[in-house]
Amino acid sequence: MKALRWLDPPEGPAIALLDQTRLPDEEVTLVCRDVPSLVAAIRSLAVRGAPLLGIAGGYGVALAAALGTDVQAAAEEVIRARPTAVNLGWGARRVLSAYAEGRDPLAEAHAIAAEEDEASGRMGEYGLTLVPDGARVLTHCNTGALAAGGHGTAFALVVAAHRAGRLKHLWVDETRPLLQGARLTAYEARRHGIPYAVLPDNAAGSLFAAGEVDLVVVGADRIARDHSVANKIGTYPLAVLAHHHGVPFVVVAPTSTFDPDARTGGDIPIERRDPAEVTFIGGRRVVPEESPAYNPAFDVTPGHLVTAIVTEQGVITRANGGNLGLLGGTASDNAGQ
Amino acid sequence: MKALRWLDPPEGPAIALLDQTRLPDEEVTLVCRDVPSLVAAIRSLAVRGAPLLGIAGGYGVALAAALGTDVQAAAEEVIRARPTAVNLGWGARRVLSAYAEGRDPLAEAHAIAAEEDEASGRMGEYGLTLVPDGARVLTHCNTGALAAGGHGTAFALVVAAHRAGRLKHLWVDETRPLLQGARLTAYEARRHGIPYAVLPDNAAGSLFAAGEVDLVVVGADRIARDHSVANKIGTYPLAVLAHHHGVPFVVVAPTSTFDPDARTGGDIPIERRDPAEVTFIGGRRVVPEESPAYNPAFDVTPGHLVTAIVTEQGVITRANGGNLGLLGGTASDNAGQ
Repeated sequence: MKALRWLDPPEGPAIALLDQTRLPDEEVTLVCRDVPSLVAAIRSLAVRGAPLLGIAGGYGVALAAALGTDVQAAAEEVIRARPTAVNLGWGARRVLSAYAEGRDPLAEAHAIAAEEDEASGRMGEYGLTLVPDGARVLTHCNTGALAAGGHGTAFALVVAAHRAGRLKHLWVDETRPLLQGARLTAYEARRHGIPYAVLPDNAAGSLFAAGEVDLVVVGADRIARDHSVANKIGTYPLAVLAHHHGVPFVVVAPTSTFDPDARTGGDIPIERRDPAEVTFIGGRRVVPEESPAYNPAFDVTPGHLVTAIVTEQGVITRANGGNLGLLGGTASDNAGQ
Repeated sequence: MKALRWLDPPEGPAIALLDQTRLPDEEVTLVCRDVPSLVAAIRSLAVRGAPLLGIAGGYGVALAAALGTDVQAAAEEVIRARPTAVNLGWGARRVLSAYAEGRDPLAEAHAIAAEEDEASGRMGEYGLTLVPDGARVLTHCNTGALAAGGHGTAFALVVAAHRAGRLKHLWVDETRPLLQGARLTAYEARRHGIPYAVLPDNAAGSLFAAGEVDLVVVGADRIARDHSVANKIGTYPLAVLAHHHGVPFVVVAPTSTFDPDARTGGDIPIERRDPAEVTFIGGRRVVPEESPAYNPAFDVTPGHLVTAIVTEQGVITRANGGNLGLLGGTASDNAGQ
């Protein structure tokens, strides 16, 4: 299962995507032969997940270069496709810089993909120190190979815990409105043979109350300098529940997710998506006609509710109840501050 | 709109229900001419809502009496239909007692319905003291005329606040898995001209964080002697969020919801419903095949997270951060202890 692949000529130049809107029913490959079709795929969430968007952004710019179209304009178009995931702009700008410096943009995009693959393995390895034996882990949204390089971010830690024999059970929030947990995380858990159950997001509370959750692991779409974490809507209530019940709340994200320009969570733009994502399910209206709906794609969890942030450079954790600081490994300036 | 009506001969004896599984698309009346068909309607949630189930339970026993069938067996069958809502057994047993004492069971069932109608009006009136001007109120599940007598329980308070000009906005949790908020509360809000928006349950956190919620009002399916409140799954996370943000969390329920036999929340049986309610939406599977799902119908909110319980006999509130005690009106022994 590869969520995103570059196609060289004669098949390409093109970007092949596993259409995530069709999973788990059908495995359909979407081939984007120009930047507008890639932007449409990003907007429709055919390709999604912050680190994977970083890879997609990079390849999008490489595609514009390969096609001989305006590379700067293409980068801007890609970056605008979704506002919250900082990795998208990070990947696009990195390949744009390579192009501007006369280096091979495709080689740079491949480098991003390879680095994210390697980062995934490291996050799994570093995060394992936070997983107790027999852990019952709760996760939200999709953070696996469909969302990032390698086995993903938070899900890479789940896979590492499973392989180390430490994972007893994975609780999978269905993740309304678009059900990335029910559709995608359950699909990935099943492929890995991980014992899991899907639940309505609002049922997590009773699992905490029953002592059935030892650890929460989630990904991130953007992390501010104060360690506020923007992630899929529904992450913040889990952080509050975890805090209330004394359960560790762990964010797993590559350092490409840190935004040095966001001082606090308030500086992170939150994408509002189409209300129809809430008011229609499977093409069927579930509310009375003309019902308004509130549909933010993300929420922001303040840093003081985050127990640790696992990056490919090490684990950032809170010491003595203070702010998050570096625990192990080495972290970039962005990650460490 | 009447969620439940008794039909006398020649139309009856029968119980006419507005089939709530078909709302908001269609207004279909379901006529139950015997106890098994009523039990099936209760199980499928065609009729639902704790206080309305009390009325339905009473009429179910009256129906058995009118048909000349075994009244005791009918009462037991009705009570077993759903385990968590205590009102169901309360209504059935009350009419059974009347029958056993040689009183008219139908008159007793009518009395229950009339009392619940009146209780609704009183709850709205008493609860109004807890609603600030310009209140933005968040509610969960459906607690209106489709769930109880009159305008309902928590929703009766919403209607009272709207009529008093104090309600600025109603936030309606969609309430997965069965979407009673999206389907039923939105339907009732629309009929009353109340400004509202529907949201995924997991988006409530970002509303609290943004200071957009002044008050949470919910109903109850059973209240223990320690004021633990069993209510629709997803209620407990709202109570934790409200507590975290210092927002009042108010339960509105008639005293028929208090269970003198439940000392604590742990004594309340929690109904586990069919996983297919989670794994299928509108007849379409949304998870990979054979995915297990966790689907408890209710959760339990401990009394210390409840700011006040509004009953038809008065408002029970916490004094000095201690346990809930009586504030106004008079309450039954059950409610006061």
